[in-house]
Amino acid sequence: MSSVSSSTAADDPWTGGADAKREAVLSAAASAFVQDGYGATSIDDIAARLGVSKPTIYYYAGGKQALLGACFSVALDGYSEAVEEGAVAGVDGRARLHQVVQKYVEITATVYGRCLHRVPDVELTPEVRDRLRAVKRKVDARIRDLLREGVRDGSLRTADVRMSTFVISGAMNSIAQWYAPGGALTPQEIAERLWDTFSEGVRPR
Amino acid sequence: MSSVSSSTAADDPWTGGADAKREAVLSAAASAFVQDGYGATSIDDIAARLGVSKPTIYYYAGGKQALLGACFSVALDGYSEAVEEGAVAGVDGRARLHQVVQKYVEITATVYGRCLHRVPDVELTPEVRDRLRAVKRKVDARIRDLLREGVRDGSLRTADVRMSTFVISGAMNSIAQWYAPGGALTPQEIAERLWDTFSEGVRPR
Repeated sequence: MSSVSSSTAADDPWTGGADAKREAVLSAAASAFVQDGYGATSIDDIAARLGVSKPTIYYYAGGKQALLGACFSVALDGYSEAVEEGAVAGVDGRARLHQVVQKYVEITATVYGRCLHRVPDVELTPEVRDRLRAVKRKVDARIRDLLREGVRDGSLRTADVRMSTFVISGAMNSIAQWYAPGGALTPQEIAERLWDTFSEGVRPR
Repeated sequence: MSSVSSSTAADDPWTGGADAKREAVLSAAASAFVQDGYGATSIDDIAARLGVSKPTIYYYAGGKQALLGACFSVALDGYSEAVEEGAVAGVDGRARLHQVVQKYVEITATVYGRCLHRVPDVELTPEVRDRLRAVKRKVDARIRDLLREGVRDGSLRTADVRMSTFVISGAMNSIAQWYAPGGALTPQEIAERLWDTFSEGVRPR
């Protein structure tokens, strides 16, 4: 890993400490991966987005695959925390599932969430791929448990717990394919409308 | 493109005419892309799956990217036809949407549908990528139109047509990530359970 080149201080538009700078590097990398694709993005491109030198990128976040892994980790940490027992309150299974959906959609709409769903698995190191699978399993298990909880307490119904889990997680993940910041709906509004379809169904009551 | 090598007749386990052989090559290629990933699959691997020589593969379907394009075309033809006006009958918007869902899920569960949703866009030629986008737009437009039709005739409701479209198409596409032939549910059963969640919602009526 290179040290920061002496020329960067002058080019450097960013302010704040090392954590803020690392966050700026990760965010620029994730944006580039989402917009241009992982394969087509170089460290030079990421440096150019920030107006800093290439060694600065290496200093704060390592090479391209390390950057990708770090971007995935931000999203995976978010998803993992979002489904923790303590992160979800609510009087019944339906209220708790609704909260998980809100949190999940918000993470999916971030640049890290979009990066996670848009960069193919094959680009990941085995470690990151394993963590991705583990977190996906954890989230799916949590959604299934909340559906079962809701069926027990009378706040939810389903003909097939697994299939309803796939409907909601498939729908939430697909947001990463079309969401762009600054659109007509905020992530919170998207979560509410998605929840409406999922909760109420499209057959009139 | 090479001609069929003289050694293939003896190795050749397949029967039928040129169309059947081309279909066998495409199916073996799609299976390999789904199971091992596009990048990790060679023409040799596809030939080995069929017990034929490498030139046989080239003869029937061209190189690797041509094979991928041909596999995508099978799925795209299917999706495109599935949403045609004449392909869908039914008394109201809901019945017609239900039929589109049944057809779409059946195509998604084929090896070509799974290939389409699992091989990343970046591997495609610009022509195939353009067609993929055009068919996706056509399918989404059809689902939106059927939702609007159902709202008008009273057979459907939604708080947001676009978001309901994303829920159903996101859920249907995600089937390609986990479906494998020979599982507990047939594609038709999967379509019915997915439709139940989408139609009835998870809030008890």
